[in-house]
Amino acid sequence: MNSLSVNDERLLGRLQRLGEIGRGADGRLVRLAASDAEKLGRDQFVAWLKETGIEVAVDRIGNIFGIWRPEGVADNAPLMLGSHIDTVIDAGIYDGCYGVLAGLEIIATLKESGLRPDCPIAVAAFTNEEGVRFAPDMMGSLVYAGGLDVDVALATTGIDGAILGNELRRIGYDGDMEPGFIQPHAYIELHIEQGPVLEREGIQIGAVENLQGISWQRVTVNGDANHAGTTPISMRRDAGHAAARVITFLRDRALSSNTPTVATVGCMTFEPNAINVIPSRAVFTVDLRDPDEDRLREEEAALEAFLAKVARDEDVLIEVERLARFEPVKFDRQIVELVEAAASRRGHTCRRMTSGAGHDAQMIARMAPSAMIFVPSIGGVSHNPKEKTHDTDLVAGANMLLDVVASLAKASKTAEV
Amino acid sequence: MNSLSVNDERLLGRLQRLGEIGRGADGRLVRLAASDAEKLGRDQFVAWLKETGIEVAVDRIGNIFGIWRPEGVADNAPLMLGSHIDTVIDAGIYDGCYGVLAGLEIIATLKESGLRPDCPIAVAAFTNEEGVRFAPDMMGSLVYAGGLDVDVALATTGIDGAILGNELRRIGYDGDMEPGFIQPHAYIELHIEQGPVLEREGIQIGAVENLQGISWQRVTVNGDANHAGTTPISMRRDAGHAAARVITFLRDRALSSNTPTVATVGCMTFEPNAINVIPSRAVFTVDLRDPDEDRLREEEAALEAFLAKVARDEDVLIEVERLARFEPVKFDRQIVELVEAAASRRGHTCRRMTSGAGHDAQMIARMAPSAMIFVPSIGGVSHNPKEKTHDTDLVAGANMLLDVVASLAKASKTAEV
Repeated sequence: MNSLSVNDERLLGRLQRLGEIGRGADGRLVRLAASDAEKLGRDQFVAWLKETGIEVAVDRIGNIFGIWRPEGVADNAPLMLGSHIDTVIDAGIYDGCYGVLAGLEIIATLKESGLRPDCPIAVAAFTNEEGVRFAPDMMGSLVYAGGLDVDVALATTGIDGAILGNELRRIGYDGDMEPGFIQPHAYIELHIEQGPVLEREGIQIGAVENLQGISWQRVTVNGDANHAGTTPISMRRDAGHAAARVITFLRDRALSSNTPTVATVGCMTFEPNAINVIPSRAVFTVDLRDPDEDRLREEEAALEAFLAKVARDEDVLIEVERLARFEPVKFDRQIVELVEAAASRRGHTCRRMTSGAGHDAQMIARMAPSAMIFVPSIGGVSHNPKEKTHDTDLVAGANMLLDVVASLAKASKTAEV
Repeated sequence: MNSLSVNDERLLGRLQRLGEIGRGADGRLVRLAASDAEKLGRDQFVAWLKETGIEVAVDRIGNIFGIWRPEGVADNAPLMLGSHIDTVIDAGIYDGCYGVLAGLEIIATLKESGLRPDCPIAVAAFTNEEGVRFAPDMMGSLVYAGGLDVDVALATTGIDGAILGNELRRIGYDGDMEPGFIQPHAYIELHIEQGPVLEREGIQIGAVENLQGISWQRVTVNGDANHAGTTPISMRRDAGHAAARVITFLRDRALSSNTPTVATVGCMTFEPNAINVIPSRAVFTVDLRDPDEDRLREEEAALEAFLAKVARDEDVLIEVERLARFEPVKFDRQIVELVEAAASRRGHTCRRMTSGAGHDAQMIARMAPSAMIFVPSIGGVSHNPKEKTHDTDLVAGANMLLDVVASLAKASKTAEV
């Protein structure tokens, strides 16, 4: 079985070609969900599906499926692979597209090899994973897994005022199939890490065993805007200082806790934002992530308690608004072990890891055993034109996916009738 | 001598009337330097000078002087009082105007009383103290004291693109006198505190013995923008966290130092300022003030050392830009003691204090012994329509100024010939 490998030239060539679709005059790659640029990417993907000789289906939320039903194979629940081909603004070429095109490559490789799986294999490109144009992100897979009503999702208004349902109709991807029409028996998503861990540790393959829970909050601190020169330190109600204390608290706590918790304050604004005026207001966001739900709740409680303490200490008013909350996802242990075994057979270094970002796999995990495979991102960079993974790592990851699919779908010469 | 007091009705009435000049349709008070609105304020002030029967002079930078040369008094170096009548945007009615109108009121009161000083007394309204339209602030007094060439100042371009010299000509306040044409033997400026100390401590009069040195710096921290979910805490180069550490360092240092040092971080921006991205850049300002030059230098050195430490600890690059630097000013001890003595005679509570804000007095202190008198600001509020000082405090402050002027100018019935 290990003698079989993907056609690396085809896979890498398609990645490059898809990455050229949706570039503006300024050279930036922008394929926002259900846009004209994304339609071109979808058309290319569908053309490759047809070239591979497999069935194409589109559901009502615009998810595209390529389904290989090998002749003589029972119509069991398919094995599903996939990811997304929409992008952020000024994107790299790997995020999402790698998982979709590798999924297609696995089908093509198996189909050409004469091996026959014991079930259909499908590759999915889920709609609006990035969530840049329409909220929430991971929308197509969320709808597919039954987590969001399809009609509610289709009525979503984008940042440009467009309605998703109208846009899908306009670009010709308002399919007939009901989301969930394929109930896979397992789902595997191959993806770039989008973080620095594999590269820093010199490891080729990440066997992703879980996905962090995410807690997003917006914190507003209200103090008093007074003159920076005339107001003694002891008489200040400095919203900026209160905000700074929260940042250092979160960092100190994360560093000392010896857990995988990450805490980030990414947004910050001061008002009135004048050099000689004590900030009357500081507004900032807190992004807390942890693969363990109990621990994530503990972190939220610790933040809440600290905010109460800061409000007392600094004589400021603090308001908290919840922006988003996702529970952690545990991936399927058996698939994770298959990834590790495949890496070992191919002589690749491998480590179990947690996905720090959200992925379609977390939605499909609601309906089927799921897991992910990561390959290294150079410098941990993603959502950026500098996003890059070495070709050797891209090919290694695709061969991992091939081996795991072959195992799960019991693809074998002996199965041929 | 103490039986003499200012005409409180006239003083308070004029403060209110000047405070109505320059209000827009929205009711906001805006008399930016050398604007149409400020011309109306200047015209009113000049009308009151003429009504008082004293000489009016305007210098080349637009400073207005009312000069009382009592008959038979030698043309000694005058005693000078004053402040400014330009305002910030959406101003209160007291900042500056109080010192100018109280100065005029002292002259009017003495003139009407039949007392005769042993030298001329002048009241000055200095041009562009606020510095909102034209930089630097305190421009008129700086030019007057020889700290800035008048032609350079007149060539200044305002935030609206206007040239100060043209604007002064346009509004008719491009005077003939050379700045510095009156060399006062002393200068006293009465002003609202613009801070909370007097009100909090229940004290009526501040005898201002010095003025803080000011150090303004802009700090830019450069780290790496990485994904908030996928980048472990230990692998981050978080510019926002580095900035927060500087804020808490400055606060902790100021609180533990038992000195009057104040440190303020008033401006802060994060880039890219996204909830799920570690800040790659934080730009913030540091406003350090201390009445002692050696200590101010120590504070600057401590900040510099801490920034170097943070750069190492957090693996970030830190750049510092100096925006402004003024040395502290020591006011004249004899005048400060006269203020204290006057407060004691009138039964007012009084404390020595430091001015945390900049004032024209700091410029005139370059050419003559100077000092300031402060009255309480309710809530410490200034540069704001809520700026307010109780009438009783306004009158008490004016009577302090009257008494100190009478002492310094040896105003007496016996001096009459």
